[in-house]
Amino acid sequence: MSEWINLDQRQAYKELKETKKADLKTLLAGENGAQRVRNYIVEMAAGLSYNFAAKAVDDNILKVLQKLADEAGLTEKYEELYNGAMINTGEKRLVLHQLCRGQLGKDVIADGVNKRDFYVKQQERIAEFAKKVHEGKIVNGNGEKFNTVVQIGIGGSDLGPRAMYIALENWARKHSLLNMEARFISNVDPDDAAGVLNGIDKAHSIFVLVSKSGTTLETLTNETFVKEALKKEGLDPAKHMVAVTSETSPLAKNEGYLDAFFMDDYIGGRYSSSSAVGGCVLSLAFTPEVFASFLNGANQMDETGKNKDIMKNAAMLDALIGVYERNVLGYETTAVLPYSQALARFPAHLQQLDMESNGKSVNRYGEAVDYKTGPIIFGEPGTNGQHSFYQLLHQGKDIVPMQFIGFRNSQLRTDLDIQGSSSQAKLCANVAAQIVGFACGKEDENPNKRFDGNRPSSIIIGDELDPVSLGALLAHFENKVMFQGFLWNLNSFDQEGVQLGKVLAKRVLAHDTDGALKVYSDLLNI
Amino acid sequence: MSEWINLDQRQAYKELKETKKADLKTLLAGENGAQRVRNYIVEMAAGLSYNFAAKAVDDNILKVLQKLADEAGLTEKYEELYNGAMINTGEKRLVLHQLCRGQLGKDVIADGVNKRDFYVKQQERIAEFAKKVHEGKIVNGNGEKFNTVVQIGIGGSDLGPRAMYIALENWARKHSLLNMEARFISNVDPDDAAGVLNGIDKAHSIFVLVSKSGTTLETLTNETFVKEALKKEGLDPAKHMVAVTSETSPLAKNEGYLDAFFMDDYIGGRYSSSSAVGGCVLSLAFTPEVFASFLNGANQMDETGKNKDIMKNAAMLDALIGVYERNVLGYETTAVLPYSQALARFPAHLQQLDMESNGKSVNRYGEAVDYKTGPIIFGEPGTNGQHSFYQLLHQGKDIVPMQFIGFRNSQLRTDLDIQGSSSQAKLCANVAAQIVGFACGKEDENPNKRFDGNRPSSIIIGDELDPVSLGALLAHFENKVMFQGFLWNLNSFDQEGVQLGKVLAKRVLAHDTDGALKVYSDLLNI
Repeated sequence: MSEWINLDQRQAYKELKETKKADLKTLLAGENGAQRVRNYIVEMAAGLSYNFAAKAVDDNILKVLQKLADEAGLTEKYEELYNGAMINTGEKRLVLHQLCRGQLGKDVIADGVNKRDFYVKQQERIAEFAKKVHEGKIVNGNGEKFNTVVQIGIGGSDLGPRAMYIALENWARKHSLLNMEARFISNVDPDDAAGVLNGIDKAHSIFVLVSKSGTTLETLTNETFVKEALKKEGLDPAKHMVAVTSETSPLAKNEGYLDAFFMDDYIGGRYSSSSAVGGCVLSLAFTPEVFASFLNGANQMDETGKNKDIMKNAAMLDALIGVYERNVLGYETTAVLPYSQALARFPAHLQQLDMESNGKSVNRYGEAVDYKTGPIIFGEPGTNGQHSFYQLLHQGKDIVPMQFIGFRNSQLRTDLDIQGSSSQAKLCANVAAQIVGFACGKEDENPNKRFDGNRPSSIIIGDELDPVSLGALLAHFENKVMFQGFLWNLNSFDQEGVQLGKVLAKRVLAHDTDGALKVYSDLLNI
Repeated sequence: MSEWINLDQRQAYKELKETKKADLKTLLAGENGAQRVRNYIVEMAAGLSYNFAAKAVDDNILKVLQKLADEAGLTEKYEELYNGAMINTGEKRLVLHQLCRGQLGKDVIADGVNKRDFYVKQQERIAEFAKKVHEGKIVNGNGEKFNTVVQIGIGGSDLGPRAMYIALENWARKHSLLNMEARFISNVDPDDAAGVLNGIDKAHSIFVLVSKSGTTLETLTNETFVKEALKKEGLDPAKHMVAVTSETSPLAKNEGYLDAFFMDDYIGGRYSSSSAVGGCVLSLAFTPEVFASFLNGANQMDETGKNKDIMKNAAMLDALIGVYERNVLGYETTAVLPYSQALARFPAHLQQLDMESNGKSVNRYGEAVDYKTGPIIFGEPGTNGQHSFYQLLHQGKDIVPMQFIGFRNSQLRTDLDIQGSSSQAKLCANVAAQIVGFACGKEDENPNKRFDGNRPSSIIIGDELDPVSLGALLAHFENKVMFQGFLWNLNSFDQEGVQLGKVLAKRVLAHDTDGALKVYSDLLNI
């Protein structure tokens, strides 16, 4: 068993702080720089590779990062996790999202069942259900086929599945694998549900209600919203609703639903794209096989996380470099910049994944930590961002480490040569240019046109964004966040910080407030 | 004429740094806290008000902020700007976006014309064109009415108009003012254009090409993409394209377009939602009257910016508090959190507006500055964010100032009482709860359930998000960013930081690279 101690108690961390800083601009110059771009690559899975040549690390720093990985027992801790240890200390729960994608170690038995069998069974039940819907064996009250699936959920039940759907929608359409269009209702703002309901063909829509406990206020509110709208059109909600919930929730075995698929306590919302939470909506929208490919890609990436060598374990290396940037170099934020319009909402998902997991101030034993933990994550797709906030990234007063993502090929392969190059070539040329521009900068007599450089980035490069590479990409970031949690000695799997707001909101609605909260409530006419 | 000097040369700034910090948690407690929420309100325009009771300022600090405003001549500088001074020093240009919305001061003559007349004339030409499209007087090759408008542009030609369209789409549908659905093509990623083109009825679509110079590579590439797609369906592009461009561009008076509407050098991309760039697509999607209301709301807010008293000038106060947070309290980021699904893309627009304007390291004379400038801006709509990155905002190691936005009423007024309250009440209860939770925190024996509080926020409250309040909201942030630029002595109206990437990308496409850039290009198969 590896020790669980704070980062600042690690010998290698002390050494890391003493290690000479690397000058990125110098390192990336000339023929040595070219060689560095060829060498600083970690092959991942599903054809993806992680290139960190434009990060401010050198061989010396890497050596200490490897020491830190070893000393912190990162792969041993990962092994404990996938073998079913109680890693979520706060809530006293196992952490099993990887088990949806494949078995990485021993059988995990919990609640009296083999958990891998449990997840596979849900996948099979969903697959069967989706096939029946696609084949017109499960139909609406008039015997007609469904054409739309609407996910009702919030937080992890929304952002992840939504980002994954958007990532594959065009790909699936091209490959004739888009069986149903998907929509998402999440916000308690009534304009969200009303807006989505106005835009769909309700008579031919299936609604997937996602709530583990069956008590999430936003979600149940939106469900009632939907049911009322269906009734108004003379439709029977029971013929349009599916539940994704826990086996013990009031939504399970409930006549108000066509069927119910099960989740458990061992997969948190932000890690649930691989569970029935993502599986139901994605299997319905595309096919069960597409979802299986997505899981397969994630599993391939999970396997790479076992490697003790940082040059063979991109998630671990990415995590270590991130900790170096946060705790030694002192950077507060990280930008995620996919050069792929299909990944438009991927940064929003990573924002949740990372900030909700590691945006904490106490360690896994509930003791305050004296060092910085998870950074602020934000991002938009390139090339759009280039014409927007990149100004600050290039010339602002703070340094923002960047995570680029790029693919050699487009999804739709509809392209044109204009001024001698295809759009895909232009897209890729831009990301290459940005990496070098950020790192190397540019001298100019006019300080307004000067670029200091030394702005670090890495890039994940793939052939094409498809279900396999998308699954791998997601798993990379999940595992990176996990390894960082290990390094910071955090519990990355609870979220106590979201509780206070819920409690206070209930008090406002019960008109049980005084002082400032009462006046704010009055100003908002509650 | 007010002096243009650096922030750290201002006497009041030195005083500000010496002024005793305010303890927000104490200030917001008890009956004094309630009184503070009633008092710390600035009435804005269009029914909006700015409540800053949950900011870490007190009467002493406010007094010094007022001194700083006076010493920096913020309203005098604003007056210079709207009277046509060359505020954009780097590019030697006037800054006239406010003039699209109304005349705030003297006649502004440039390029031999009265610029207010010029902007009004374009609005009238667009209105006439839009009416003809809506009435079926301008039709497609088969004599049929258009039903969709697609904006082709990037950066400021995309984010602002897109955010405004999304903000008003549901509102317009409810009020039978949605004449055409709008779509947007921006990214050079070929999957963006192909995806949008797959999803629309091309035969009944008008495309608005936005490019000031007529040479923006992404935009022209996407235009060619669109034209080829139209030709493939046997459609004549000249019957489907409109240009928004400068009078001297190759797109003006060009037979390839149904018409061309003009922009000039005095309104930068990120400030162009009020110009023909926003005007054309929004007048077509909704009506010219809706766009006029939007301009009217912005103009009302612009008028409030003239007030020297910080308690009557929310944009100026917001700017000053932001500078206090950035330069005295040392906060690096700001979260924009609208409790309105319709404002889903508003934070992305503000991210561009703010970070591209003030993410700089040299003052307006091109000299390096020794203090922090524009912060990093990010955000997502509440309540969604509550189930996501709010964890870090509540319990993370860094303090992130927050800008909430809330409305007493929904846009669609389709609502239901569930568990004793409407969805709109739940939405408002949540934002009230968050403000107080962030500021006041919560003690707990378990450190994992403890909330330190003292996390500052302000809220803009309105009755309803409609064209007038949306215009006012946009103008507030534009003016806030302008005032901050004045305080930091920056040129908020150029964007030299986006140039380097363009130059390098061209070299990649011309295969004129060596070293690291060449290897990155190879890895991406360019």
